[in-house]
Amino acid sequence: MSEKWIAGVDLGGTATKLAFINMEGVILHKWEIPTDHTNEGHNITKNISDAINERLAELDHPKTKIVGIGMGAPGPVDYETGVILNVVNLGWKDNFPLKASLEELTLLPAAVENDANCAALGEMWTGAGEGAKNIVCVTLGTGVGGGVISGGSIVQGANGAAGEIGHITVMPFGGAPCNCGKTGCLETIASATGIVRLATEELSKEGTTGGLSELFAENGKVTAKEVFDMARNGDVIAQKVVNEVSFHLGLTLANIANTLNPQKIVLGGGVSKAGNFLLESVKENFSKFAFSAVRDSTELALATLGNDAGVIGAAWLIKNKIKL
Amino acid sequence: MSEKWIAGVDLGGTATKLAFINMEGVILHKWEIPTDHTNEGHNITKNISDAINERLAELDHPKTKIVGIGMGAPGPVDYETGVILNVVNLGWKDNFPLKASLEELTLLPAAVENDANCAALGEMWTGAGEGAKNIVCVTLGTGVGGGVISGGSIVQGANGAAGEIGHITVMPFGGAPCNCGKTGCLETIASATGIVRLATEELSKEGTTGGLSELFAENGKVTAKEVFDMARNGDVIAQKVVNEVSFHLGLTLANIANTLNPQKIVLGGGVSKAGNFLLESVKENFSKFAFSAVRDSTELALATLGNDAGVIGAAWLIKNKIKL
Repeated sequence: MSEKWIAGVDLGGTATKLAFINMEGVILHKWEIPTDHTNEGHNITKNISDAINERLAELDHPKTKIVGIGMGAPGPVDYETGVILNVVNLGWKDNFPLKASLEELTLLPAAVENDANCAALGEMWTGAGEGAKNIVCVTLGTGVGGGVISGGSIVQGANGAAGEIGHITVMPFGGAPCNCGKTGCLETIASATGIVRLATEELSKEGTTGGLSELFAENGKVTAKEVFDMARNGDVIAQKVVNEVSFHLGLTLANIANTLNPQKIVLGGGVSKAGNFLLESVKENFSKFAFSAVRDSTELALATLGNDAGVIGAAWLIKNKIKL
Repeated sequence: MSEKWIAGVDLGGTATKLAFINMEGVILHKWEIPTDHTNEGHNITKNISDAINERLAELDHPKTKIVGIGMGAPGPVDYETGVILNVVNLGWKDNFPLKASLEELTLLPAAVENDANCAALGEMWTGAGEGAKNIVCVTLGTGVGGGVISGGSIVQGANGAAGEIGHITVMPFGGAPCNCGKTGCLETIASATGIVRLATEELSKEGTTGGLSELFAENGKVTAKEVFDMARNGDVIAQKVVNEVSFHLGLTLANIANTLNPQKIVLGGGVSKAGNFLLESVKENFSKFAFSAVRDSTELALATLGNDAGVIGAAWLIKNKIKL
């Protein structure tokens, strides 16, 4: 019997990532299509189905090559029913039956999960988790997402809202407003947006000097990447911002670890591209605030799959279901 | 076939609680024996075995009445091997093979687990958890313990240190020293000891007045219970202490809920006897800091089993193993 594949899909606001993945979690083909929000989002699953069929035809494989389709979507998902509860930016109305729609159009078994959870499952399967069954993944991107894996399965939570690590309150007083309606969430500090906000606040003070300040004067803005690059070069303002981010991230992760003592906490997303420079600084704070037995056993690591984590984790949903 | 029983044991520093419990989690007989620390702790399991045999003889039941013995012990336990990793106050050396010792002496299948985790399992089985499979229990006693249950099972953690909720850092700067070696842990504020410390600090200031201040002047000390009683009666200093405790507890529990979105968070231990007065105040803070979907779905509740939670949860370890 020739090797079977899984279709992994990672739905984003502007682009949808697709991949054919084998049973060992290796990506064999990957590509992207635009995400079409029109028609109340009904084109989204139609386009995914068409894209899979077209690609299979190009590769001269029958539909039976694919054993199922796993998909990650932004927003809370009811894993059991495959219903996506609410997504503001994709056209879908509340409680869109994503799994049913995929199955109807592709005639394949489907499984859907929140995208941050898919990224966590991907890192568990073939990434930084290296097969560990108890890990926490934190995605530091435009926002801050999270996925908690216990005993090899995603912790869903009573309302599909487990893993909302970005909305842990780190500044109970005087914190910045968060998109979620609260203030002082981790996301207001440790996301790319939060880092830019902190830097801009510092740079807007009177009499700032240094490389970051010069960039700010030149471009009227700075990026999170510039903050890290400048901090690495010793820029005082940039270092102050990185220290604040690392403090809140290290403290929060230590407190999560005091609760769950996972084998690994994996940091992914665009901000994590700051690499070991960020990781070491977070680790230093983590060590200060972790309970001794936790400090000795919970490891902090950088994600290794980059943008592929989502499609790989989505494919894992099918792999785990069929236990081939 | 006559009803089978499970022996549940809850090991404490001064007394060991024992109970015969049926398969529905109902306590039929319960009693206590002193905990004997001498002989490097080897008398502990011997005395438990003898106590069970004597009680069975008194009740005129054969040993076969009991299907197994479940036991909770203070300190980190490796659930798989039944080894208690380190306990300072019971005479045992590190890595004491508690399960093996119990099985050798009682000739019954044994299972051991950390005592806070047993209390959590007890509340899940027949207490405030009411069968919910995803709950977090926090025991507010002399210290603050915790147990995290996901999918009906205790989350053990990489090093048996999951559930160390008492050692979540709530005051990263200027916090009081904790027994664990860190400072500013939740335990330094929300335990009975922490509440007394906060009250004593307030009462030691110049020019304090009110009922709690009078009690302090009279007795040279106050208890956590007195702090709650006085706060309920409107004493300003006592209310200030309760507000601080509720703030840190509500914030911490909201952040745990943002991570895990459990169906219930159950508050137990001596301090929780303050009842709805404490619960309502904690809930108010919880609501402020919980992510909206979490606020709507994670419920805070008081433990209902009191001191029986430990033996009932210990018995559950056997119930769960044998699936009778």
